[in-house]
Parts: sequence; structure tokens; C-alpha cells
Amino acid sequence: MPLRLDFTQPDFETAFSAFLATKREVSEDVDAIVRDIIERVRTEGDAALIDYSKKFDRLDLAEVGIKVTAQEVEAAAASVDDETRQALELAHKRIWSHHARQMPEDDRYIDPIGVELGSRWTAVEAVGLYVPGGTASYPSSVLMNAVPAKVAGVERIVMVVPTPDGVLNPLVLAAAKLAGVSEIYRVGGAQAVAALAYGTETITPVAKIVGPGNAFVAAAKRRVFGTVGIDMIAGPSEVLVIADGANDPAWIAADLIAQAEHDTAAQSILITDDAAFADAVEKEVSRQIAILPRGETAAQSWRDYGAIILVPDLEAAVPLANRIAAEHLELAFEDADAYVDKIRNAGAIFIGRHTPEVIGDYVGGSNHVLPTARSARFSSGLTVLDFVKHTSLLKLGPDQLRQIGPAAVTLAKAENLDGHAASVAIRLNPEG
Amino acid sequence: MPLRLDFTQPDFETAFSAFLATKREVSEDVDAIVRDIIERVRTEGDAALIDYSKKFDRLDLAEVGIKVTAQEVEAAAASVDDETRQALELAHKRIWSHHARQMPEDDRYIDPIGVELGSRWTAVEAVGLYVPGGTASYPSSVLMNAVPAKVAGVERIVMVVPTPDGVLNPLVLAAAKLAGVSEIYRVGGAQAVAALAYGTETITPVAKIVGPGNAFVAAAKRRVFGTVGIDMIAGPSEVLVIADGANDPAWIAADLIAQAEHDTAAQSILITDDAAFADAVEKEVSRQIAILPRGETAAQSWRDYGAIILVPDLEAAVPLANRIAAEHLELAFEDADAYVDKIRNAGAIFIGRHTPEVIGDYVGGSNHVLPTARSARFSSGLTVLDFVKHTSLLKLGPDQLRQIGPAAVTLAKAENLDGHAASVAIRLNPEG
Repeated sequence: MPLRLDFTQPDFETAFSAFLATKREVSEDVDAIVRDIIERVRTEGDAALIDYSKKFDRLDLAEVGIKVTAQEVEAAAASVDDETRQALELAHKRIWSHHARQMPEDDRYIDPIGVELGSRWTAVEAVGLYVPGGTASYPSSVLMNAVPAKVAGVERIVMVVPTPDGVLNPLVLAAAKLAGVSEIYRVGGAQAVAALAYGTETITPVAKIVGPGNAFVAAAKRRVFGTVGIDMIAGPSEVLVIADGANDPAWIAADLIAQAEHDTAAQSILITDDAAFADAVEKEVSRQIAILPRGETAAQSWRDYGAIILVPDLEAAVPLANRIAAEHLELAFEDADAYVDKIRNAGAIFIGRHTPEVIGDYVGGSNHVLPTARSARFSSGLTVLDFVKHTSLLKLGPDQLRQIGPAAVTLAKAENLDGHAASVAIRLNPEG
Repeated sequence: MPLRLDFTQPDFETAFSAFLATKREVSEDVDAIVRDIIERVRTEGDAALIDYSKKFDRLDLAEVGIKVTAQEVEAAAASVDDETRQALELAHKRIWSHHARQMPEDDRYIDPIGVELGSRWTAVEAVGLYVPGGTASYPSSVLMNAVPAKVAGVERIVMVVPTPDGVLNPLVLAAAKLAGVSEIYRVGGAQAVAALAYGTETITPVAKIVGPGNAFVAAAKRRVFGTVGIDMIAGPSEVLVIADGANDPAWIAADLIAQAEHDTAAQSILITDDAAFADAVEKEVSRQIAILPRGETAAQSWRDYGAIILVPDLEAAVPLANRIAAEHLELAFEDADAYVDKIRNAGAIFIGRHTPEVIGDYVGGSNHVLPTARSARFSSGLTVLDFVKHTSLLKLGPDQLRQIGPAAVTLAKAENLDGHAASVAIRLNPEG
């Protein structure tokens, strides 16, 4: 049974605060193992990758090659059926056109006293994209990570993907081809992250690593951070659905289940102003889970982390939604548009009854890499901005230096940084 | 003696690679201590802050109060002399007008098939600003961190600053007042970071923590990351000056020294195409350091980490500069403008002979919080974007769902996520 909270009950604030503080992840302590793996890849290069793949993936890379060949990629792409290929192409097209609008513009200007200033954006030169193996090897995730990088102008996109027993997901290769991934290597785990950060004989290092992964991958990304950039470390997925009683309970139940089927640590939350509707949704969740292939996962997630919160009216849901700061927020009621600007903290907002969150996972055009675990209070989903970097430009002539230089000298002296003061003062009094 | 490298020598690439790999920081292992401090602040709140301040700052907060009063701030601001106050005001005005141009615009649009999409930016609700105590307590740093937050629309800016023996830097308080900091607490170290992240009886928690600090502060920021956002962990400062022989060696020497005086781990690098000029600069550095108050620090930095790289022509400096990816890059030669677009990796570029880096530290208008240790290859200096977050908006009606929904169903099934498929399919076939 999911948690039930009632806004009108006197203990609500206490219960809701406790609910917000719930941790859904057990962080495995794999740091010592990961440190050793990274060290070995740094010193032994390809030989370490070959050895780890034998051990973890039961695959001899010395035989099949570390790099996935162009022929393999072509063959995989050709094996995709027409319907799936067209769906991937639609997703790619829509993700591209949405992200193309995110490209920041350079700003060069001259201020009233003649100082030239600028903000300039340049693409990261090379990006590594980690793709998990096995059942979590998702072609949609390849598109969501690679397309913004490509839009940003990243020249080298290097994909790594573990291939347990040598098995590669052909859809992942097809998505990589579609997105314009430059190189693909069949390595995974902390060793793949180390190879991307430090390079080996076969893999030239990148400047930034993105993409989801297990505890070993996450720990490796944390360790190499600084040497390269990394994206956020994503936690288990979550959805908050705010729905009134006019919804079909089966639709809302399906949305809650879609999130819950990801992972036993996923979280689905319903806020509604209609107690009878809440009951109907709960009944529907049970009915639908029973016939779902991943029903056991969904049932456990719903039981352990699911929640239904009753509010006296939808207005009362707004501050709760802002505190939950959900990765995905569905507003499933008639005047949803009027509520969008009241929501301050959310990774993505899905507006109205006909925008199930799943559309955003695949073909909506927006990115599905979004902040989890309440981090939408301070962080953003993946955008083109994650693949560019900002450089400030400043240019003064002698006149401008005469005008604002003395203030710099004053402040430097006030901070007891006389060397700073001298570097300006020497240009103001060239004789001394 | 600083390192000397010559591009034309056969061992240059080996020597330059080794130079790039030099670590300038000894990372103190303070993590266990910091873990305990954070835990105590979480459980004991204000009492822990009071206890730690007695121990580390020799100050009884129970007596003087954790919060700095409005009267104290007013008194400090009133004590600042006119020249310094005007310099602070000029810096504030110029930083504000530059950063105001960085505010991202929301984007709402309807695509050709009628799907409504959007990118929306909202300010982080509350930000904590760490300001170091003692000699590293810089009013300029208060402006550089607080102004972008204020421009972004952050409602609560909470400053923490350690006050060893009860001493507060009046200029820091004056800068905080000028920048519109909302609250100031006289606590520092890991305990202040913990208080900002988790809150105490006196300090309401924030959503993001920014600002420089020592090893304890950096370790605490890493530990609370996830609960709150953090900015980059800045390393020692660095400058790369590319200069031809037509410069006054004394000017360039002053710029190298300005960086070196920060810290014994700071780094100053000169690239020049003129060997005689290199010698003249080196002589000037020695002469100027000898009469500098922080000369000993500067001398040690210059000796241990300084470098002079000779190139056959300035064009050869470009790829080197892109590999160094310096925090600060000065282009001190006649046609510097023509080189700006060739530089891909740099935190900030200072163009021409009359733009010493120090101008950017104080009054240029651009931010002085910039990526160090080659991280300009993948990260940016502080901008308004660090204080806002992105929310995706998506809205479909029944027609749009009919058009792109089937592709989502296809991809969900291809990923074996039947619950995902069902959440779209149930809306396409309402009969069930």
C-alpha cells in the first residue's frame, strides 16, 4: 500500500516533511574497488580494458576488438524494422529541433566608456557518452545525450557500452548512428569511465563524460571529475501527478505505473482533491500492475515509495509540488495552464490530460535527462548548455584604463594585494 | 627559477605534457573530520555552531549572537572611506550591468503539429554565500558571487563568514550591504556549510551554496552536494600571458606577479616569441618581487610553478593556450583581437596591452570566479545561469497525441517498458 497523507489532518506537516526526507537509494560503497580499476586503466591502458572485459563481460576484446566497427554499426542499423526506425527518426527530429533553440548566443558589446566586453560560448571539444548494457541499454537515452552535444557543436562524441557476453543492442547502435556518434567502444563500468578520462592506446581521452550508469560508473565519474567534466549523477526516477476527479482513473494509474516500472526505488506520487478518485486510481494501479511484464518491480516501487496526498483544493497542491520539486510533474486538470507559472521547482512539466510523461521520454522533443531527488530546487535537466562553456572577454584601451583603473588599484590595496595594485598602477604611471 | 620550455627543442612535447600534468594542490584528507562536524550540526544545531566557534574562532556566539545585526552592518558600511566606497560602487555597477545581459530568456512556442513546448528559467529560491575569514576575506569576492544571484532573482542570499577572535572585515560587510545580501552569520568552516545545507534554529537552510573556502569548506561542500547545489570547487589561481617583444617587460612582469602573490600554489605562465624579452621579464619579476609586501609568496609560486615558454611565432602559442586552458589569459600584442576566436579554452580573455587581468578581478564587469586547473576545457566561470534552473514544458492535445503517440508506444515497447507504452496507448484507445 502506498503512503496516504491528508493535508487537512493536524499531523500533515510532520508526515509530509518526513516523506520529503525519505532516501530511496542505498549507496553501495564501491569507491575502493573503483579507485583500483581507474589506477589500473591509467597505468596499463588497453590491457586493463581487455582484462576487465574478460572478467565482467565474459568477452575477449583482444579477439573481437575494443572498437565497434563501422560494419557492425551499419549491420545493426539495417536490422531495425521500419516502424522502430521511423519512430527513432521522429524522436531524433523532434529532440533536435527543440534543442536547437537552446543554443546560447555570444554577446559582444562596447559599454558607455568604451570598454569592450563579451560573453562567448564554445563547444566542449570531445564528449564521452556512457550507455549501460543489458536491460537498461536504451536507444532513447543515446538520443537524449548525443543530440544536445551535436547541436552544441561537439566534434567528437565517444560512446562506451558494456557488452555482456558480447551482446550489443542493435537499437542502441542505430540510435548512435542516427545521432552522429563518432566512435563506439565495447567497454563498460568504471574501466570505461577511466579510459574516457585518461585515454588508452585505443581510446583518445575526452573533456567531459555524460550518461547514466550503475554505482560503479557513478563512483568512477565522481573520481575523475576535475580531470574531465561530468553531468549530474542521476538518482531513481520519479513522477508527481496532480489530478482532479474528472480524469479517467485508468489513465492516471497508467502514468504512475510507467514511472514505478523503471526501478524498485522509483517513486510515483498522486496529489488529488478527490478522495473517491484517489481510491479509484489505487484500485486501477493494482489491476494494471497485475498484468504488466515488469509488474513486480512496479508493485514494489508503488508499495515502498508511492504516495497519495489528498488536498482540499488544487491550489493547495502548489506549495507541496514546489517542495517535492519532482523530476516529472503532470498537471492533469482542466485549467492546468494557469498553474504552470505557480510551479517553481520541477525538472519538466507535462500540461493537461493528454500529455502523459512518457511522451517526454521519447518523442516530445524536450530532454528526458532531468534532476531527481528534489534537486530541481537548484539544478536543471540536460540542455545544450551542458556541452558548451563560457569565456569572458574584456578589452580596455589607455583611456578606459585611466577611467576605471584607479578604482581597481584602490580595491586591490584595500585587500592587501599590492601586486594586483601594481599591475594596474604601472600602466597608469608609465614612468614609474 | 621558473621552468623554461622551448617549442623548437625536440623534447618540447614531452616536457610540455609533463608541465600540463603538474598538480599544484596537496589535497588534505579532512573528510572524516568534516563528516563529524556536519553530523553534529545536523543533530545539535545552533549549539554545535556555538561550540565550534569557541574552539576555532575563540569567540562566544552565545554572547555576541550568531547573526550579524543590521546595526553592525550599518556601522561597518559607514566606516568605509569615500575612495574605497566609490570604488566598491563602481565595481558593483559594472558587475551588475554586465551580468544583467546574461539573464536567459524563457522560450514558449507551438511546433508545426500543434505541440506546445517551452524552456523556462526560474531563480533558485535561497543561496548561501561562503566568505573566508582572515586575510582571504575579500569584498570583491562578495560582489562577484552575490551580484549574479541578485540579477537572477534569488530572494534570499545568506552570507556566512568566520570571525576569528570576533574580527569582521568592515569592507566585506559593506560589500554585502551594497550587493543586497539578506542575512549574515558569523560562522565559518564546515559547520557553516552544514548549517546552510540543513539549517539550525537560527539559520534557515538554502538550496545552493557558493563561494571559496579552505580544504574543510571544500570537503563540506562536496559532502552536502545533492542535498543542496554547490558551485565549482576552485583550485589555486593561474594566468597565462602571451606577449610579444614590443611590450614593456615591467608591465608583463607585474601581471605575472599579481597572480603569483595570491598563493604559493598559484601559477603564472609567459609565452613569448622573443627570447631577449623573456629574459627581461624574468629580471623584472625578480626586481619587483623584492619590493613587494607579499613578495615571499609570489617568489615561491614563481619558482615552483612559474613557466616561460618560447615559441617561434605567436601563432604557435594558440594550440598551447588551448591545451593549458588557463583561468585567465592575457593577449598582450598588437593584433590580439584577431586571436580571440582562435582561443577555445579559457576562463576569461584579456585583450591587448592595456587590459591587465587585475581589471577583471575588480572593475571590468565580468566575473572573477573562473575555472582553474585546465577545467576551462569543460566548464565556465560564474554567471547568472548558476543561480537559475531550467524547466521543460510540454503540452499536447488529443490530436497531437494521435500524431506522435504511436511512435512513443513503439519505442517504449522496443525498450521493454510496457508500462510506458500503456500510459500512451490507453489515451489513444480510450475504450481500453
